[in-house]
Amino acid sequence: MRLHEQKERRVNYEQVFDTAIERLHSEGRYRVFIDILRNKGSYPNARCFAGHNGPKPITVWCSNDYLAMGQHPKVIAAMEEALHDVGAGSGGTRNIGGNTHYHIDLEGELADLHGKEGALLFTSGYVSNDATLSTLAKILPGCVIFSDEFNHASMIAGIRNSGAEKKIFRHNDVAHLEELLAETDPALPKLIAFESVYSMDADIAPIHAICDLAEKYNALTYIDEVHAVGMYGARGGGISERDEAAHRIDIIEGTLGKAFGVMGGYVAADKRIIDVIRSYAPGFIFTTSLSPVLVAGVLAAVRHLKASNAEREAQQEAASTLKELFAEAGLPVMASTTHIVPLMVGDPVRAKKVSDILLAEYGVYVQPINFPTVPRGTERLRFTPGPQHTRAMMVDLTKALVEIWHRLDLEMKQAA
Amino acid sequence: MRLHEQKERRVNYEQVFDTAIERLHSEGRYRVFIDILRNKGSYPNARCFAGHNGPKPITVWCSNDYLAMGQHPKVIAAMEEALHDVGAGSGGTRNIGGNTHYHIDLEGELADLHGKEGALLFTSGYVSNDATLSTLAKILPGCVIFSDEFNHASMIAGIRNSGAEKKIFRHNDVAHLEELLAETDPALPKLIAFESVYSMDADIAPIHAICDLAEKYNALTYIDEVHAVGMYGARGGGISERDEAAHRIDIIEGTLGKAFGVMGGYVAADKRIIDVIRSYAPGFIFTTSLSPVLVAGVLAAVRHLKASNAEREAQQEAASTLKELFAEAGLPVMASTTHIVPLMVGDPVRAKKVSDILLAEYGVYVQPINFPTVPRGTERLRFTPGPQHTRAMMVDLTKALVEIWHRLDLEMKQAA
Ligand SMILES: Cc1ncc(COP(=O)(O)O)c(C=O)c1O
Ligand SMILES: Cc1ncc(COP(=O)(O)O)c(C=O)c1O
Repeated sequence: MRLHEQKERRVNYEQVFDTAIERLHSEGRYRVFIDILRNKGSYPNARCFAGHNGPKPITVWCSNDYLAMGQHPKVIAAMEEALHDVGAGSGGTRNIGGNTHYHIDLEGELADLHGKEGALLFTSGYVSNDATLSTLAKILPGCVIFSDEFNHASMIAGIRNSGAEKKIFRHNDVAHLEELLAETDPALPKLIAFESVYSMDADIAPIHAICDLAEKYNALTYIDEVHAVGMYGARGGGISERDEAAHRIDIIEGTLGKAFGVMGGYVAADKRIIDVIRSYAPGFIFTTSLSPVLVAGVLAAVRHLKASNAEREAQQEAASTLKELFAEAGLPVMASTTHIVPLMVGDPVRAKKVSDILLAEYGVYVQPINFPTVPRGTERLRFTPGPQHTRAMMVDLTKALVEIWHRLDLEMKQAA
Repeated sequence: MRLHEQKERRVNYEQVFDTAIERLHSEGRYRVFIDILRNKGSYPNARCFAGHNGPKPITVWCSNDYLAMGQHPKVIAAMEEALHDVGAGSGGTRNIGGNTHYHIDLEGELADLHGKEGALLFTSGYVSNDATLSTLAKILPGCVIFSDEFNHASMIAGIRNSGAEKKIFRHNDVAHLEELLAETDPALPKLIAFESVYSMDADIAPIHAICDLAEKYNALTYIDEVHAVGMYGARGGGISERDEAAHRIDIIEGTLGKAFGVMGGYVAADKRIIDVIRSYAPGFIFTTSLSPVLVAGVLAAVRHLKASNAEREAQQEAASTLKELFAEAGLPVMASTTHIVPLMVGDPVRAKKVSDILLAEYGVYVQPINFPTVPRGTERLRFTPGPQHTRAMMVDLTKALVEIWHRLDLEMKQAA
């Protein structure tokens, strides 16, 4: 080949990257991160930077710190104490210097929360899903994974990274799940992976019906309770606690970054499964362990929410109020059996427009939710009112939305 | 099929899991985590739990908090301030409520550290490798990845998860790398992935020679500087700063959990690459962002280490002293051109035995390093002396090791 030809065949990396970014712009889903700081002690108040002279006060309506535990005095005090007792980081992986007494205590606390023999901490809920699912399926040769079509990106990553065969069942559709189980070789290991609360659609899985099938077809069950731990059940054990189903689930996965207010993830299961994940999952083994400061904060949050129902009740109350106000005003609030209040827009550009106006003119921060988080054409706003959002704030928010809905000529529902 | 036959073909999950664990026991590499708390302000002193009545004082010799920045007053103060200003967690993903001013500041600081246009934070160094490598190779169809055989598990995970073709070159072997590049279709995108400091072998990559090949064969370069950031270069920019090679590397990856003392990971690169990863990597997008408390601590650590060489110099000094003492005593210290001091044992059971005796009889904590972290038959102890380990402590440690080496009849070298 002549040099000239060879030159022409060289990859133009910049062009490939530019094209990838251009695609997002043209679909109206290029993301710009809003730059904020929450004000501790006066949540949902926060400060917004960029585009103004100095920080501008705003109200946050889309935090997943659902119960504001990230600002709870007990959590702050525990973190401060750990910071002064042991320092900032763990300094190592769990196996090499990074296994602190805090980690062991929290794993015990989480195992107890779910009535399981053991629990295992990860640096995030994402990593707990990815590491556990990919490792389990590798340990079980020939494993077939049955996955709800709306499962979170982290479960999808874990399943894909496992290399196992995947069969996707229609969202919460037990009949379809049974069809897929029945057609699969009974001799193969099976795992059913699903969520309890689907955070973008605000609905809940039929746990007992899924467990019935798991028993019938000898499948393991894996539930992601990321949006439910701390939020449901008498001690915050999630939907599996509320529905008295925890003992029927093999692996319960949760986050420490939403209702528990801090950061991190975990799985709870019997000792044998925990030991396998602990011993074989690269995503658990080869990484600096969670900072003991975070772990101390989570310990305080979990312990508090085991004993106190006040935050859960206030949050459910706030969510019902907002759903009612939206429905009464004729806003297209989606059906929700959970603590999440999604409002359908159906288009990425207009969803962003509503969000931009709310922020610029009303000091309200709610992020538009686009593909790939939700299917195209179902772009929405997702509100997570908490104990600290007052009725007066919700009334103002509803008025603002109605004004914007009219301004942008968006579709209204019959007022409820 | 009769019911009886079907029963027999059912998977026995417990047995599969038991077998997996049994394998580890039989190979002598089942891991038991030691339960410790470091004492802030008096590192390397710590407390060890379990197996005693109450905590027992120990000295830590295997922390990756190389410079004890996790206990630095500036870091602690910054974390405390953030804790009281904004609270425990970020409450959301970077796109949905979890993008704080701290995150933006730290990304700016890290971009500057490496002389790059941008940087992107991840929840860990593991995730930064996994997410970036898997996403890059997906964005570049047909991409071939050239990977050093000793690359870290997190890079291996990212490369495997990308689905790209992988070609492994012999450790730091530039001639072998060129062979592999030369035999590959010039029209295909290429990425060379390697580390600067290999932490288990304590050697350093020939960065310039690798970059020469990358230019010749039009390949992107990706360097893991996890064990070098904060540690090398006039401002702590790593080996790529020390060797004046940062501008020749496309993507520099680092951790916030070792020399910077806290937790988290990042990549630094030109704006275009950062934007692609930010927009397409599920491991970046779909996870709660780093706690602002951690980010504030890292900001203080990075800024301090940009201006101060004292910690780096004291650490290098400590490492040379320990290497010398080991060599003089005839202990099989491995060749090391870095801050790490590995001592070869060559067998998992005996490596664990040495470590157990050190802890039980001498109050010295150093973790044995086994497969799969290092190849079988090269099991070792890995010491990371820091500015706070005194010469007297090192002399005592050397004496202890010589005693144990004789007791277990391990091989000595000719005393240096
Ligand atoms: C259903 C679900 N699972 C897992 C995760 C990941 O958890 P984390 O934020 O702790 O990484 C999320 C969101 O972040 C989620 O929505
Ligand atoms: C070379 C290398 N890369 C990446 C990592 C992962 O970094 P982190 O601990 O921040 O997850 C490690 C060790 O933990 C490592 O040794």
